[in-house]
Amino acid sequence: SKTVCASLLEFSRKTKELGQRDSRRICHAIKVSLSVTVVTLLFYFDPLNLGGFSFTAIFAVLSVVQVLEFSVGASLGRGINRMVGTLIGVILGPPAHHLATISGKTGMPIFITLFLIIMSAILSFMRCIPRITARYDNGLLMLLLTFCLVCVSSYEDNDALAIAKHRIIAIVIGSCTSMVISIFIFPVWIGEDLHNLVARNVEKIGDFLEGFGGEYFQVRGDGESNIDDKSFLQGYISVLSSKETEENMANMAFWEPCHGRFRFRHPWKQYLKVGATTRRCAYKIEALHGYLTSDTQTPLQIRRRIQEPCTKIALECGKALKELATTSKRMRRSTLADTHLANAKAEAENLKSMLKTQWWEYPNMLEITPALAVLSLLLEVVECTEKIGVAF
Amino acid sequence: SKTVCASLLEFSRKTKELGQRDSRRICHAIKVSLSVTVVTLLFYFDPLNLGGFSFTAIFAVLSVVQVLEFSVGASLGRGINRMVGTLIGVILGPPAHHLATISGKTGMPIFITLFLIIMSAILSFMRCIPRITARYDNGLLMLLLTFCLVCVSSYEDNDALAIAKHRIIAIVIGSCTSMVISIFIFPVWIGEDLHNLVARNVEKIGDFLEGFGGEYFQVRGDGESNIDDKSFLQGYISVLSSKETEENMANMAFWEPCHGRFRFRHPWKQYLKVGATTRRCAYKIEALHGYLTSDTQTPLQIRRRIQEPCTKIALECGKALKELATTSKRMRRSTLADTHLANAKAEAENLKSMLKTQWWEYPNMLEITPALAVLSLLLEVVECTEKIGVAF
Repeated sequence: SKTVCASLLEFSRKTKELGQRDSRRICHAIKVSLSVTVVTLLFYFDPLNLGGFSFTAIFAVLSVVQVLEFSVGASLGRGINRMVGTLIGVILGPPAHHLATISGKTGMPIFITLFLIIMSAILSFMRCIPRITARYDNGLLMLLLTFCLVCVSSYEDNDALAIAKHRIIAIVIGSCTSMVISIFIFPVWIGEDLHNLVARNVEKIGDFLEGFGGEYFQVRGDGESNIDDKSFLQGYISVLSSKETEENMANMAFWEPCHGRFRFRHPWKQYLKVGATTRRCAYKIEALHGYLTSDTQTPLQIRRRIQEPCTKIALECGKALKELATTSKRMRRSTLADTHLANAKAEAENLKSMLKTQWWEYPNMLEITPALAVLSLLLEVVECTEKIGVAF
Repeated sequence: SKTVCASLLEFSRKTKELGQRDSRRICHAIKVSLSVTVVTLLFYFDPLNLGGFSFTAIFAVLSVVQVLEFSVGASLGRGINRMVGTLIGVILGPPAHHLATISGKTGMPIFITLFLIIMSAILSFMRCIPRITARYDNGLLMLLLTFCLVCVSSYEDNDALAIAKHRIIAIVIGSCTSMVISIFIFPVWIGEDLHNLVARNVEKIGDFLEGFGGEYFQVRGDGESNIDDKSFLQGYISVLSSKETEENMANMAFWEPCHGRFRFRHPWKQYLKVGATTRRCAYKIEALHGYLTSDTQTPLQIRRRIQEPCTKIALECGKALKELATTSKRMRRSTLADTHLANAKAEAENLKSMLKTQWWEYPNMLEITPALAVLSLLLEVVECTEKIGVAF
């Protein structure tokens, strides 16, 4: 039992750590239990005369739990999808039921089954199309579920309309409770998260570039420093695979209303563009990173010849990017980024003209190659930085 | 009405195209409607004496629709999660109800609400943890929903056990129908898809490398060919952002039983490793691609000096990768890939020794730089190719 106790303690410690690291998760958990309670009490005290606990109450609670997501955008997306999907399902249900009734006692089940088959086939096919699924998957699912529900209840000649009414009430109450709580109690705006993510990614690349010069030209030789220890050199790695995350976030942000600093309907596509440009820059950074750890290296004394311009280019690009990231976080633009970029470009021109005129008299071409590759990549990074600046 | 007709025709044409392009989607749609029909008929003729249409039937149909996903892995994952989650919810429900009953008529609602709050908070918190969500999200949701359901029905002093029993029956029938149909009727194995995706990605990189030599050394000058037309040069782009897709697929494949060519429980992690190595190679390819379109180019006559070895290296690496991809699709290993790789490595050594001894007497360092960068990247691609070969 001692080990059980210890592992329980360990578990609670870890959970606590997790909660501290992202207190928004705990907040989300509290929000979910709050909305479940609200809906339950609503049916318990029944001020709206909904008839107390029943089928309706159960569906309302289920809706609350399914709609309330971590972010406002996701909750609104789910809630709206759920309500619109259900509404369409409810509207389609009774006519189908009526059509089936016309065909008499024996024909009715056959007709209803037929409707069910056709609807489920069409909707399932639509749910397989990525572009539709990204935004309206939940809505299509709810449409299908509601249609099934109404059809299935029709078999028994139940009052399809009554069932439809109950379902609509349940889903509207559940979804709206969730949506209201998600918007008004410690809201997590996914659009803001996307904004921060994009800015953070640009910053990470800036971090790498700022540190690159020192790493490539100086510290490699003295053996005491280890590349793996330096987190600023690893930060860009998460940028490489940020595409899907950004797209998912933009899809959710689509549902969010204007709020806070985002006064106007925000151009989420613009963020995706900045993200794409940043990623393209990150690929170059990945190639640069390869030369930090590569086996074939240019001897340090040769590297030193291009140390000054290269370090300066990387540094100025890094500063420009970090400036862009910081100002975008504060939703402002500064001219400082442009200054840094101009410095980087001037230095790049310097380097180019230096290369045009000075001939390195060194007999081993193989040893020079990596340094020249780094140099060439740095020149491309300058172009990338400029593109990121334009995209912002 | 003519335009309506035309647009309807256009729509049906597009749908048909979509269906032809991926007939598996249509197949999926048919499978969904089949399983909905099976479950509906099961309750209609009631051979299992389930009591005809009722609450149970509705939940069974809802389960069918929610469980049957595009691939076997996804369906099994959802089905198993759904059943296990419901089972745990059902097991936890009655004790909670019993505990609440002890505290008398007035205390009961308070206790039940308390249980509800605690459970929904814990489960919502767990659903926010990415590692748990990736595989068990649906299970946690079902656990929460079932617990809510049982609790809510307890308020009215309904027979919580009867409700639990009905819910379990509904979900088992719905989930099992979906799972059986997904496995036995035109199954789409996501593990196989993952396998093919990984192989296809390696192939795409091979395609690029095979074509790279010709593109970089010959065709650039004559103006008639356009890079944008050549799809083999663009194929690698999708590889760059394949990480999340592969991870999602591996998470789904986790649920799939042994089947067909996958006799043993397949090491999906191995695929992720191959995928990661391939992506690292794709980043180098991206850098190489940059030099095809870059503004600063080494003059063609200078490039020609390294044309033969570079073309050969790229070609042999490309062939090795494509051979690896083809043989892995057939689940075999050939020595041909190793031969190509050995050729590439020999050629790389040639090139290196050529660079060591021959000094290029060309006064403009800047113009040589891009060609040397390409050369250096190609040497790294050889290393990457070797790593992919090892990972396979």
